[in-house]
Amino acid sequence: MNTPQSSSYLSSRVKALELNDAGVQLLDQNALPRHVQYLSIHTAQEMADAIESMKVRGAPAIGIAGAYGVVLSARYFFRSDMELDLLRENIREDSRILLNTRPTAVNLSWALQEMAQVLDNPAWDTPSRLLDALTKRAFEIHEADILACRKIGEYGATLIPPGARILTHCNAGALATGGYGTALGVVRSAFMNDPSIQVYADETRPRFQGARLTTWELLEDHIPVTLVADNMSGMLMQAGKIDVVIVGADRITANGDTANKIGTYNLALVAKAHNVPFYVAAPLSTLDLSRATGREIPIEERSAEEISTINDEIICAPGTRFYNPAFDVTPAHLIAGIITEKGIARPDYQTTLAALFSCESLV
Amino acid sequence: MNTPQSSSYLSSRVKALELNDAGVQLLDQNALPRHVQYLSIHTAQEMADAIESMKVRGAPAIGIAGAYGVVLSARYFFRSDMELDLLRENIREDSRILLNTRPTAVNLSWALQEMAQVLDNPAWDTPSRLLDALTKRAFEIHEADILACRKIGEYGATLIPPGARILTHCNAGALATGGYGTALGVVRSAFMNDPSIQVYADETRPRFQGARLTTWELLEDHIPVTLVADNMSGMLMQAGKIDVVIVGADRITANGDTANKIGTYNLALVAKAHNVPFYVAAPLSTLDLSRATGREIPIEERSAEEISTINDEIICAPGTRFYNPAFDVTPAHLIAGIITEKGIARPDYQTTLAALFSCESLV
Repeated sequence: MNTPQSSSYLSSRVKALELNDAGVQLLDQNALPRHVQYLSIHTAQEMADAIESMKVRGAPAIGIAGAYGVVLSARYFFRSDMELDLLRENIREDSRILLNTRPTAVNLSWALQEMAQVLDNPAWDTPSRLLDALTKRAFEIHEADILACRKIGEYGATLIPPGARILTHCNAGALATGGYGTALGVVRSAFMNDPSIQVYADETRPRFQGARLTTWELLEDHIPVTLVADNMSGMLMQAGKIDVVIVGADRITANGDTANKIGTYNLALVAKAHNVPFYVAAPLSTLDLSRATGREIPIEERSAEEISTINDEIICAPGTRFYNPAFDVTPAHLIAGIITEKGIARPDYQTTLAALFSCESLV
Repeated sequence: MNTPQSSSYLSSRVKALELNDAGVQLLDQNALPRHVQYLSIHTAQEMADAIESMKVRGAPAIGIAGAYGVVLSARYFFRSDMELDLLRENIREDSRILLNTRPTAVNLSWALQEMAQVLDNPAWDTPSRLLDALTKRAFEIHEADILACRKIGEYGATLIPPGARILTHCNAGALATGGYGTALGVVRSAFMNDPSIQVYADETRPRFQGARLTTWELLEDHIPVTLVADNMSGMLMQAGKIDVVIVGADRITANGDTANKIGTYNLALVAKAHNVPFYVAAPLSTLDLSRATGREIPIEERSAEEISTINDEIICAPGTRFYNPAFDVTPAHLIAGIITEKGIARPDYQTTLAALFSCESLV
């Protein structure tokens, strides 16, 4: 088997996942920050389970995980002398399993479509060639994401005033992407230029990605961070302690409406009330121009246990009902700019987002 | 010792605290909902510790707890033949300890001032008479709070449309008061008239009073409740699922600015953005007309552990910084009405709140 060059040469200190000959080495994000342990994933089904249980999470990262899952599927079914159509059919079946793990982030279906184009390409006319082509495309997706995040970081850093106090929600960092981060990519780039910036992290209930992941990832890179509960953003802004809000995205529709981790919409409303600019940072793979507005984005609801139970202790009364949407939609009018690898889109997003696909760069 | 009639005859199923001959029986709110256990409090210092560690919490309840703490002090130092000035001085010293436990809720200092007036009254010219007078005043404070909450419930219920979906934050219930609740008093009164109303409870980070206390208290009274994370209110309102927001208060200044549990301000901003009426329910003992605006309210900051640690597990990276204000201030312009035992004050609060003190009833 001919393994293309690993993508790792472009990643930061924090690495969410990596494909090598042994399988996908995946940092178990449910164990952070207490345990830094990599799981070895060998099949598409194992990858689907890891995505569903959020051992790997973050829209760009689960796109890459999906692509690697297809490679694992190809490896699993691969026999050098087998019928090519049978191999393709087996991989397609695994792709459907991967696709059905989480509905909101569009990057997963985007990456699987990219892989499907390779899968269906008649140019790859032997099992070996097909496996190599799939592997190469998966690495390209990973590498392209890291490059995109670095560009997002560079563009985004131009929006950060000297000494800015930046508030972020959830984890849109190296852990959520190929290895540099979207919102935290902007933080990284800004911090390199100006170590006086300050970062506030929303803890991000119910799964605490801000507490568990963002603090860990930033401190691994020696970027100081202050942790707050999600409901403290109003008080922080009222006291004039926040200059900029930057978050990631799971899906952005043609009009700029943005699905992101639950609580993002509250934060955007609070920022608007204080005239604090609210930015979304995301690669173009997060754009879904096939959907007109955020109303068309499927929102995942997760289990009641995420709210009812902490460390195996039930924290509410028996008989309590629950509502646990994993994402919300921030309407475009609350977003000051969408930072992509091709530049910063400003309202009217209907025009500027479409333009991102047809020109070299917006900036 | 002549013990006046217990106040318990007016309380609801859920009882936060009760004074009897053995001391103050105090429901340990840190143990709920897993353990329903009453602690026996015998000294003012024990009561101060219970207030500081939030075994008893909620502005009206800690007012009552403070008054009972003064009674415990009087019992502790009481000798029938002792020098009255010495007894008074000892009780004053304990009152200072009680006062210094928590700064934001004005009810504590209000109740201690009420007790100080009894303490300083020369009419109580023997230790026995003084002890009886203090005990009587403490019971009156407790009973008056229950009555006030029932009136708040009645007035507030008039604001609840049929079948309304009500969102509340933290716990402003029987547990937070003498025994009926402010915001949850309104819920109780509304539910008696219309069992089709629905209650949503914010879990209320960092201490989870919504999850731990509000769900327990409502389900004890067979009122169904749906628990959500604090950051889901925007999504709920965007989907048209909330008709009214009602919260309690820790201190209301002359202009109507309201300090309440952290996250209340975020919720008020989110409600405003969706034109959902946002009401504050509080007894007049929560009003602090000596302060002009919310900027003058002292805001308690609590320990980092409340954010960093859950069930003894540290959930963020070593080196993380923290900011943990226990309250925020909602400006009056976001408040549709302040529901008191004398009626519902509407803007302009400067006028209407002052009027509450000088007339029998606003409604």
